[in-house]
Amino acid sequence: MDLYSGYINKLIEALASLPGIGNKSAQRLAFHMIHMPVEDVQRFANTIVEARTHVKYCKSCFTLTDDEICPICANLNRDHKTIMVVETTRDLAAYEKTAKYDGVYHVLHGAISPMLGIGPNDIKLKELMVRLQEDVDEVIIATNSSLEGETTAMYISKLIKPTGIKVTRIASGVPVGGDLEYIDEVTLLRALEGRVEL
Amino acid sequence: MDLYSGYINKLIEALASLPGIGNKSAQRLAFHMIHMPVEDVQRFANTIVEARTHVKYCKSCFTLTDDEICPICANLNRDHKTIMVVETTRDLAAYEKTAKYDGVYHVLHGAISPMLGIGPNDIKLKELMVRLQEDVDEVIIATNSSLEGETTAMYISKLIKPTGIKVTRIASGVPVGGDLEYIDEVTLLRALEGRVEL
Repeated sequence: MDLYSGYINKLIEALASLPGIGNKSAQRLAFHMIHMPVEDVQRFANTIVEARTHVKYCKSCFTLTDDEICPICANLNRDHKTIMVVETTRDLAAYEKTAKYDGVYHVLHGAISPMLGIGPNDIKLKELMVRLQEDVDEVIIATNSSLEGETTAMYISKLIKPTGIKVTRIASGVPVGGDLEYIDEVTLLRALEGRVEL
Repeated sequence: MDLYSGYINKLIEALASLPGIGNKSAQRLAFHMIHMPVEDVQRFANTIVEARTHVKYCKSCFTLTDDEICPICANLNRDHKTIMVVETTRDLAAYEKTAKYDGVYHVLHGAISPMLGIGPNDIKLKELMVRLQEDVDEVIIATNSSLEGETTAMYISKLIKPTGIKVTRIASGVPVGGDLEYIDEVTLLRALEGRVEL
């Protein structure tokens, strides 16, 4: 697009390279930024760079945090003998929002995917096994209910079983409020298999 | 949200303040950036600041450009006696894409909106009137077909009429490929009023 100035074109391209931002959105965002006060733009750019450079992995659970040890791992009121394994920090946040889980987490930062060439060594799995050498009662596998998530869950459970530590998997089934009519067959069968007595 | 690190929260907030970016998108973008290589993040931030600080208004038509005079105004092969008045640089780009218009433009950077408190002095209208002191044959008003765009068009035409310069308005009607069934009544009436002989 030579319609715009070189600087605007570069900005549009940079924005359009972000996930979920198409060309139209990138244009709208670019023109919005061009009309923002210079100080605000400078502050926005600094916020991005600061976040990228200051955020680190928690030395224990590998979630993204400002500190060496994240607030959850540092909290002695939480049950450090129960570890929930999640794929991403966002998944951790989703469970934290329920305010019902009081164990700790382990963030894998990905899932095993032969398709994408992501193997067990590409996610924080060794780090999980190191943690299991301490006193742990239960590992709850809360990876996604996708092919990759299930593969990862199976792999982890096989890895942990020999240690004698209890391994569980979060239930899959019909989402609360879900209309059976619109739920896929695999989920329906899962919900049937996982039925509980009332 | 205290679920994430302070730096990530700041980044999510900054992203969510952009138009069309909701909280979920802001989270996805923030985590994408956190996982980008540091150099790429630095380059991205620079691109934003550079665009904001280097881009200026064309001294003639006020579109956003890298130069004092934009490539369109600098092009002597274009018809400088025909000026198309648009609201934004994006609208200019939309007409440029047609590759059929060979006049020049005037970018108002907004439209008159009593609702938003935007008056004639808040858009580049005085600058348009200055340009009309030169040799101009026709002013084509191509503001949006919205309430604000129509108000602005009316205002401009009243302003220019006394100068004797021809003032035209782009046609409104059924969009090409549009299905009459789904077109609003106002547009249908406009299309009827604006009918042309075949």
